[in-house]
Amino acid sequence: MTNNRFDAERITRITITPVAFHDPPLLNAVGVHERWALRSIVQLTTESGITGLGESYGDEAHLRRLRHGADALIGADVFAVNSFRPLIRQALAADSGVGGHGMSGMVTGSSTEDRVLSPFDVAALDVQGKILRRPVTDLLGGAVRAAVPFSGYLFYKWAAHPGADGDIWGEALTTAGIVEQAKTMVADYGFDALKLKGGVRPPDEECAAIEALRAEFPDMPLRLDPNAAWTVQTSIEIGERLNGVLEYLEDPTPGLTGMAEVRRKAPMPLATNMCVVSFDDIAPAVDAGSVDIILSDHHFWGGLRRSQSLAAITETFDLGLSMHSNSHLGISLAAMVHLAAATPRLDYACDTHWPWKDPAEDVVVPGTLEFSDGAVPVPTGAGLGVELDEDALGRLHEQYVRCGQRDRDDTGYMQSIEPDFRPVTPRW
Amino acid sequence: MTNNRFDAERITRITITPVAFHDPPLLNAVGVHERWALRSIVQLTTESGITGLGESYGDEAHLRRLRHGADALIGADVFAVNSFRPLIRQALAADSGVGGHGMSGMVTGSSTEDRVLSPFDVAALDVQGKILRRPVTDLLGGAVRAAVPFSGYLFYKWAAHPGADGDIWGEALTTAGIVEQAKTMVADYGFDALKLKGGVRPPDEECAAIEALRAEFPDMPLRLDPNAAWTVQTSIEIGERLNGVLEYLEDPTPGLTGMAEVRRKAPMPLATNMCVVSFDDIAPAVDAGSVDIILSDHHFWGGLRRSQSLAAITETFDLGLSMHSNSHLGISLAAMVHLAAATPRLDYACDTHWPWKDPAEDVVVPGTLEFSDGAVPVPTGAGLGVELDEDALGRLHEQYVRCGQRDRDDTGYMQSIEPDFRPVTPRW
Ligand SMILES: [Mg+2]
Ligand SMILES: [Mg+2]
Repeated sequence: MTNNRFDAERITRITITPVAFHDPPLLNAVGVHERWALRSIVQLTTESGITGLGESYGDEAHLRRLRHGADALIGADVFAVNSFRPLIRQALAADSGVGGHGMSGMVTGSSTEDRVLSPFDVAALDVQGKILRRPVTDLLGGAVRAAVPFSGYLFYKWAAHPGADGDIWGEALTTAGIVEQAKTMVADYGFDALKLKGGVRPPDEECAAIEALRAEFPDMPLRLDPNAAWTVQTSIEIGERLNGVLEYLEDPTPGLTGMAEVRRKAPMPLATNMCVVSFDDIAPAVDAGSVDIILSDHHFWGGLRRSQSLAAITETFDLGLSMHSNSHLGISLAAMVHLAAATPRLDYACDTHWPWKDPAEDVVVPGTLEFSDGAVPVPTGAGLGVELDEDALGRLHEQYVRCGQRDRDDTGYMQSIEPDFRPVTPRW
Repeated sequence: MTNNRFDAERITRITITPVAFHDPPLLNAVGVHERWALRSIVQLTTESGITGLGESYGDEAHLRRLRHGADALIGADVFAVNSFRPLIRQALAADSGVGGHGMSGMVTGSSTEDRVLSPFDVAALDVQGKILRRPVTDLLGGAVRAAVPFSGYLFYKWAAHPGADGDIWGEALTTAGIVEQAKTMVADYGFDALKLKGGVRPPDEECAAIEALRAEFPDMPLRLDPNAAWTVQTSIEIGERLNGVLEYLEDPTPGLTGMAEVRRKAPMPLATNMCVVSFDDIAPAVDAGSVDIILSDHHFWGGLRRSQSLAAITETFDLGLSMHSNSHLGISLAAMVHLAAATPRLDYACDTHWPWKDPAEDVVVPGTLEFSDGAVPVPTGAGLGVELDEDALGRLHEQYVRCGQRDRDDTGYMQSIEPDFRPVTPRW
């Protein structure tokens, strides 16, 4: 019926542009970040000529599904986001659903429908805000904070991709390297919380890194995320060792059952963005008592309004809420900031890969998204408050065309360098 | 921070007007509807002179709390509804919290904070819609249906209040009377579902009434709501007897534990607006397996956006969703219609007391809310799409002043007529 409304604002065109930007060799449990991070940029235009922006994963299967979704949304009212999900569901019925999770095998259980819905939901809200001359936060019930605090995201890393120049961060393969990285990142961004991506070095070493961070930053909330690289037993042991040191322990071990077992014995809260990644996972996780904190991520939780639903669910079931991040550009950062600002009970500083991105590479005009004291002030312009730089989009698309990467594959890339590498989970 | 936004639209005045309108002697498990139904009408005005409308209960303790809440919201940005709840929580900290539930003791566990928040949330969305020139549905993600189906709400009733003239409906104290009432209501409104308020006559009689309705309306979904008047054993027996006849059985017995026991044995879904009435009830109800369907009600679930959260929760936990109603006027009906229209998975026709209200008595200008085939088309005007009739508001307020009723008290009223009446739960 919404298409028959006299004041419907119909979607007339959706452009999906894959882009690539440089990514440092960041190590994780399944391999290492490739030379290029892939993203898709959504431009959604309505009959009045207003364009809204969205950003998502860049894997080929995902791009194909985004195009199916885009086709289904042509003619829909941009205010009728509640109608997008069934349209997308229908459009995806014929798609196989294999691959395209955007996270290199670390998270494969997220909802395909919600991953596809997400950038269109964001772009529609951007259009709505532009038409209504209000920031997206106002469409989500209003900002409850003026700026959104983020955590500094520390990675073990190589100095450079093989055969390439090194980045400004240098190598970090030891505790000393991680502490140096943290000092630089805190000095540059003012973060008030730190997260270490673990699952890379043996648990004892990662523990030692956390302990060294604690010594260096006595009051800083610290998190460790081994991406399910540990057994239940190891997780419990490390949990005991880091008692009183970690703000939360993120995905120490795979699966709802293993997490529940660890949670019964580990002294700190357990967080996840691996075992609860879709609405279908929530009831079993609550039933099993698997986690204390869910890391939301609008890219796989179906956009901003669905992520607000997740927030309401976590509040209702007395779970904590934090926010997960992938390598991303400015459209995603703007969306994350609007969402987090309009989420009353967001209990922790959000994750972001932002410091790892070359500041010269983005698709939005610089200036509206700036870190201050570890936080990003909410853009006050209409919609997301960020503007697309068409030339920059062209450059990053050109990089995509030339780079040859078509899917995120941290494992394959690692094996091209260290042939014996196996993404064993749990490894320790 | 929201108050410092350059484009904040500040709330400058909130008027709360208690009103009374005629109510027929409708019988229920705790007594009988009094001569007057009490409501509060909220007019929320912003610095630009835009006024939005809300409607809630009219009990004195509730009115007092609404005034505390209103005071706390002066100066708030009307777009910052996410900030209303903490403001109201603070304002209510000094209030005792006794009484004022608005439902004559049938529902006492709802959240005081959410009951107070509700009409301000609705009025703020009405203002937003008027400023943005969009219907409230669009602020809730857009309408997924053009009209909202309601159920015909059947009551055992007396012909008249003692000493007063009878109403157009006449007496209904027998199965034949209920069937006649149903035929009239279906003929007048076109309802495609029927609900019988039970807990009044012995269970066998109410069963017989349902069976007679089934014979009269072979394809009509039928519901029975004894308001927890039955024991677990009686509930199970009646459940078995009405197997295949009822669409759902609503609150047969009190409490999460009793409901769970019935649910394990009764063949039809169990619905509730008594044992799950606040966000705090949801986790225990899911844990105990107490219900299949939650009846939402924005008047005690904290307004429209919080009710959308409830809808997301029911969807996530595979619970059904229906909608509860109290005696209400047009502002509430408009809000219910907008909410229901923007709720993708609303599984059942909504409840409404609308047919029991004298059409000549309302506070909104007639014409925008009309039943057609048992459904109300979503108003397409800005905001709620209904206009306050100031003269009518004055008349209904005058009725409030003169009527002498200050709290809903079905039990006390019944005892004034039948002194031996006791609101025993469960009775049978
Ligand atoms: Mg993680
Ligand atoms: Mg009921």
